[in-house]
Amino acid sequence: MDRLFYLADLFGVAVFAITGALMAGRKSMDLFGVLVIAIVTALGGGTLRDLILDNHPVSWIRNDTYIWVASLAAVGTVLWVRMTQPIHERGLLIADAFGLAVFTVIGTEVALQHNMPHSTALIMGVMTGVAGGVMRDVICNEIPLIFQKEIYATACLLGSLVFIGMRELGTPHWLDTGVAMLCVLLARLAAIRWHLALPRFHLLNRD
Amino acid sequence: MDRLFYLADLFGVAVFAITGALMAGRKSMDLFGVLVIAIVTALGGGTLRDLILDNHPVSWIRNDTYIWVASLAAVGTVLWVRMTQPIHERGLLIADAFGLAVFTVIGTEVALQHNMPHSTALIMGVMTGVAGGVMRDVICNEIPLIFQKEIYATACLLGSLVFIGMRELGTPHWLDTGVAMLCVLLARLAAIRWHLALPRFHLLNRD
Amino acid sequence: MDRLFYLADLFGVAVFAITGALMAGRKSMDLFGVLVIAIVTALGGGTLRDLILDNHPVSWIRNDTYIWVASLAAVGTVLWVRMTQPIHERGLLIADAFGLAVFTVIGTEVALQHNMPHSTALIMGVMTGVAGGVMRDVICNEIPLIFQKEIYATACLLGSLVFIGMRELGTPHWLDTGVAMLCVLLARLAAIRWHLALPRFHLLNRD
Repeated sequence: MDRLFYLADLFGVAVFAITGALMAGRKSMDLFGVLVIAIVTALGGGTLRDLILDNHPVSWIRNDTYIWVASLAAVGTVLWVRMTQPIHERGLLIADAFGLAVFTVIGTEVALQHNMPHSTALIMGVMTGVAGGVMRDVICNEIPLIFQKEIYATACLLGSLVFIGMRELGTPHWLDTGVAMLCVLLARLAAIRWHLALPRFHLLNRD
Repeated sequence: MDRLFYLADLFGVAVFAITGALMAGRKSMDLFGVLVIAIVTALGGGTLRDLILDNHPVSWIRNDTYIWVASLAAVGTVLWVRMTQPIHERGLLIADAFGLAVFTVIGTEVALQHNMPHSTALIMGVMTGVAGGVMRDVICNEIPLIFQKEIYATACLLGSLVFIGMRELGTPHWLDTGVAMLCVLLARLAAIRWHLALPRFHLLNRD
Repeated sequence: MDRLFYLADLFGVAVFAITGALMAGRKSMDLFGVLVIAIVTALGGGTLRDLILDNHPVSWIRNDTYIWVASLAAVGTVLWVRMTQPIHERGLLIADAFGLAVFTVIGTEVALQHNMPHSTALIMGVMTGVAGGVMRDVICNEIPLIFQKEIYATACLLGSLVFIGMRELGTPHWLDTGVAMLCVLLARLAAIRWHLALPRFHLLNRD
C-alpha cells in the first residue's frame, strides 16, 4: 500500500514536470530552463511545505529518485514534441488532476503528523498541490492561471477537508486516502468537463 | 500591554490582507486567488523572516487566528466592493502605515531576541514590513511599487533604527515600541502628504 | 588559502550586487529598490541553499560583512553611473563569470559537507550560482535571461561535476577548488566569446 502510494507520488512528480516543461517551451526557454521549470513545478510545493513546517530533510534531497523522475519527464517532453508528436491535452489534464490528488493528500498528512491544527493542515494540503504551479507561472512571467480559470485549488481544499474529517472519524488509512483523492479527482474532472469556475473579483484599475 | 500589541498585530494582518485582496481584484482573480494573495501579503514577510532566522514554529502555523483574520478581511473586501461601496483610499493608506509600523517593530524585536547583529535586526525589521507586499506584486506580475513610489521601506528602516538605538539605551519596552512605531507612522504619513520619494536610478536599456 | 577563498567569495558578492543594481536601474527603481535587488541577487542563491539544506545560521545573518559589501557595491554602482562613467560590459561579464565559479564551488561543498547525494550536491552548486540572478529577474518582471541566452547554468553544472569527481578521487582541497573554478570560468568565457547556447525548446502558444 505504501509502495503503491510512493509510485503514485512519483507519477504526480512526472506529470507536474511535464506541465512545467510545456510552459517553458511556450516561453522558448533553452534545455536548462526547461529542466529548472520542470523541477520547480514538480517539487516546489512540497519544498515550501517542508520549509514552513521545519520538516527536514526536505523530501527530495536525500532521495534523488524525485529529481531523476522530474528531469526524465522534462527531457521526454522535449523529445516527444521534437518528434512532432501531438500533446494529448485532455490526457494531460486528467493526469494532472491525479497528481494534484496525490500531492494534496500527502501535504495534509505531513501537517497532521506534525500535530498542526486543522486549518494549517488544510493550507499545507492546498499548498503542496498548487504552489509548484504558481512558482512555474511566476518565473515564466504569467499571472497564475489557477487563480483565474476553472476550479483547481478548490478541488484540493475539498480533498483536504474530506481527508481531515475521515481521519477524525478514525477510518482506515487506505480508505481516507482513497476517498480524499477521489474527491479531488472528481471535482477537478467535473470542473474541466463543465467549465466550473469560482466567481471572479473585478476591480477597475484606477492608477 | 502584550495583549494590546497582539491586537495591533492582528490589525496589521487585516489591513495588509485588504491591500492584497484589492490587488487581486485589479487582476480579476477568482475568490481563491483573492484569498491566496491576501494571505501571502499579510503573512509572507513574517514567514520569510522566521525561515531565515530558523525561528520555528512559523508564527501562524500554531495559531490559526492569523489565517482567519486574513481570510475574513479578504472576503469582507470582496463583499464590500460587490455592494459597490467606495474604498476610502486615504483611510486605507493610513491603516497600512499603522500595520507597517507594527510589523517593523515585531521583525526587529524577533531578530534581537535571536541575538542577531544590529544590521541583521534592521534587515529583518524592514523585511517583515515589506516582503509580503513585494510577494503580492511579484505574483500579480507587477514591478513592486514600493521600489518606485513614495518613501515606504525607508520608513521601516528609520523605525527599526530608532527601536534598536533605544533598546541599547535600555528604555522601557512600551516606550521604545511606541516611539519606533510613531517614527514609521509619521515618516509614512509625511511621505504620502508631501509625495516624498527617494531619488530614482534611471539607466537606459541597451538590449 | 581559506582567507583567499573568503575574499573571492566577497568579490563574487560585490559583482552579483552590481548586476542587480544595474537591472534595478533599467527598471528606474529608487535607491531602496536598488539596494534590495542588489542584496537579493548577491545573497539569494546561498540563502535558498541554506534553507533547503537546513544549514543554519544562514551565512550572512551572523557576519554582516556580506550585507555591507553588497550594499556598498550597489551604492558605488549608482554613483559611478551618475558620474556618467561608462560601464565596462565585458569586464563585468568576466567578473560575473568569476563570481559564478566561486559560488558554484561553495554551494557544492556545503552540500557535500552535509553528506548529501551527488545529485543533490550538483543541484546545490547550480542553485547557489544562479538562483540569486533568477530572483532578480523575477522581481524585476523579466523572464530569467539565463534560461534563454548563452550557456550560463550549464557552466555551473560542469564545474560542480568536476568538483565532485575530484573530491571522490581524493585530490587536495586547493586543487579541486581551483580546477572546478577554472572549468566554470572557461566554459562561461567561451560561451560569451563564441555565443554558445543550448538548443531552445519552442512550443507554439495555443491559448
